[in-house]
Amino acid sequence: MTAPIRVAIVGMGKIAHDQHLPSIAGDDNFTLAATVSSRGEGVGDLPHYRTLAELLASDTPVDAVALCTPPQVRYDLASAAIAAGKHVFLEKPPGATLAEVALLEAQAVEAGVTLFASWHSRYAAGVAPARAWLAGRKILSAAIVWREDVRVWHPGQDWIWAPGGLGVFDPGINALSIATAILPPFFLVDGTLSLPANREAPIAADLKFRDAAGVPVTMDLDWRQTGPQSWDISVETDAGTLKLEKGGAVLTLPGAAPQVAEDREYPGLYARFAELVRAGTRDVDTAPLRLVADAFLRAHRKAVEPFVE
Amino acid sequence: MTAPIRVAIVGMGKIAHDQHLPSIAGDDNFTLAATVSSRGEGVGDLPHYRTLAELLASDTPVDAVALCTPPQVRYDLASAAIAAGKHVFLEKPPGATLAEVALLEAQAVEAGVTLFASWHSRYAAGVAPARAWLAGRKILSAAIVWREDVRVWHPGQDWIWAPGGLGVFDPGINALSIATAILPPFFLVDGTLSLPANREAPIAADLKFRDAAGVPVTMDLDWRQTGPQSWDISVETDAGTLKLEKGGAVLTLPGAAPQVAEDREYPGLYARFAELVRAGTRDVDTAPLRLVADAFLRAHRKAVEPFVE
Repeated sequence: MTAPIRVAIVGMGKIAHDQHLPSIAGDDNFTLAATVSSRGEGVGDLPHYRTLAELLASDTPVDAVALCTPPQVRYDLASAAIAAGKHVFLEKPPGATLAEVALLEAQAVEAGVTLFASWHSRYAAGVAPARAWLAGRKILSAAIVWREDVRVWHPGQDWIWAPGGLGVFDPGINALSIATAILPPFFLVDGTLSLPANREAPIAADLKFRDAAGVPVTMDLDWRQTGPQSWDISVETDAGTLKLEKGGAVLTLPGAAPQVAEDREYPGLYARFAELVRAGTRDVDTAPLRLVADAFLRAHRKAVEPFVE
Repeated sequence: MTAPIRVAIVGMGKIAHDQHLPSIAGDDNFTLAATVSSRGEGVGDLPHYRTLAELLASDTPVDAVALCTPPQVRYDLASAAIAAGKHVFLEKPPGATLAEVALLEAQAVEAGVTLFASWHSRYAAGVAPARAWLAGRKILSAAIVWREDVRVWHPGQDWIWAPGGLGVFDPGINALSIATAILPPFFLVDGTLSLPANREAPIAADLKFRDAAGVPVTMDLDWRQTGPQSWDISVETDAGTLKLEKGGAVLTLPGAAPQVAEDREYPGLYARFAELVRAGTRDVDTAPLRLVADAFLRAHRKAVEPFVE
C-alpha cells in the first residue's frame, strides 16, 4: 500500500473550510499534515503556522501544499513550495498573470514536482458526459450565461475587485474552464467589459468568441443579478440542444430528463492531484485564464454605475 | 540548388514597402510572387489581388505569405493561408489575442506548414551580443525606457488605438521582445496604464516586473514624447551596466565604446523564415504578447487627457 500524501493547506478561508478540508478527509490518498494562515486558525491538534516559510522551516513533514490564498500572492508561495521540493495544488485562477504561471511550471519541471492548476468546475457532474456527447455532434453555436449576485457570493472580498482579482471573471472563469473542456478551441473576436466607476475590475461582460470553423460562442457575465441565479451553458448541435445548468451539475440532453448527480467537484480535483503526484507529472492548463487575459486585452470597456457593497 | 520560396505580401502598408519588399529582394531564398491589398497597389508587373481569397483561388503559384495587415484581421488571413498549405510569416504582434495565435499554431502543425511569429527587434544588431554577454553575468536590475512621439511614428493609424491594436504597447512590445530574449523569464507584479479619455488603448504605461530571483525589471512607455526619442534598455550587472539604445541597434558594454552596426532586422527575419521553411518547422513565441495581455489584466488604469491627433 502506498503511503498517503501529507498535504498542508495554505490560506484557511471559505473555500478551504467548505471544500478542501472535507475532500482531504474523504480521500485515502491524502492526510492533512498542517495548516497555514495569518489569522491563526488551526484544525484540531494539527500543526499550524502563520506563514508558509515557517512551515517549510519546521520539522513538520509535508509532501504537498494546497494554495487557497488570493491569486495576487500565489506566485511567491508556490515558488517557495516548489523550491522546497513540495508538490503544489493551485486553487483557481492559478495566478494573477499568465507569465508567472508559465514560470512556475518551468520551476516545477526543473524540481521534478507536481504542479496542478485546478479548475473545479471541470469536475462538475455533467461536464464529462457533456464532452462525450458533444464529441460525436456538429456544434452550431454555444451560449454561456453566468449571472449571480456578488453581494451573496463574494461579501467583503476586496481582493476580487483589485487588479489580478478578475472581478466578474472570478466566477466567469469557471464557465470558461467548462467551455474549454467541452468545445473545440475558441478565441475572442469582440466584446465589452462593464466597469463600475469606483472599481478596477469588471462587474459584467458581454463577449463574442468563435472557433476555427466560425461557430459562435457567446458569454453573458453579470454580477448584478438578484433573484434566480444562472450558471448555464447551452450548446446547439445538429442533434438538438445540450444544456448544462447549475455550474455544470445538471446536464440535459435533447429529449431526455435532466441528469443530476452528487457534487463531487473537489473530491474529483483531489483524485486528479493524487494521480499526478503518483505519476510524477503536472497539469497546468492556462486556457481559461488566457481567455480572460484576452478579454482584458481585446474587449471594449464601458463605465457603469459605482458598486457599493 | 534549392528553388526560391515564392512569397506573397498581404497588406501593402508602410512596413511592407519599407522593410518586406527590400528584404525579399535582397534574399536569394525568396522570390516575390504576388501582392495583395484592398487598395490595389501592385509591384511592377507582378500579379496583384484585392484579397487573399482571390490569390488563393488564382493560378499564381505561391509557397508562403507574409501578413502585414493590422493584427485585428490577421487570424482569418493566416488560417486561410494555412488551410491552403502555405507557410505563414506573421508581422508583430502575431494576433489580437493569445488564444487565436495558439489555435493558428495548432492548425499549422496539423497542416505541416511553417508559422513564424516574427519579432523584428530581436534581430537588431546589439541583441545577440547583449544576450551572449549577459549569459555570464549576475543581473541586478533592468530598466526599459521606450518614449516616442505617436504623431510622428503612427500618423492616422486608427487601428492602433482600437482594442487589439495595443496602443503604446505596439512599440512597447518591441522592447518586450528584446527583454524576453536577453533576460531570464519575468512577470508583472504591479503597474499603471494611462488611457486618454477619448481612446480605448493606453498612451503610456509604468510597469514593474520581476524574475524568479526577485530581480526587478521596470518599463516606462510613453507615446507623448516630443524632442529626443528613447528606445533604450539598460541592465545593471555585477560587471557593470549594459546599455542597448536606439531599439537595440547600439550596444554599449561597460568600459567599451558603443557598437553600431548596419540595420539588418528584416533581412534577419527573412533568413530565419527561410530556415524554418527549409526545416519544415515553426517559431511561435508569444511571450511578448503574453506580457502585454498580463499588463491589461493586472495593471491599474488611470484616465489622462484626451489624445487628439
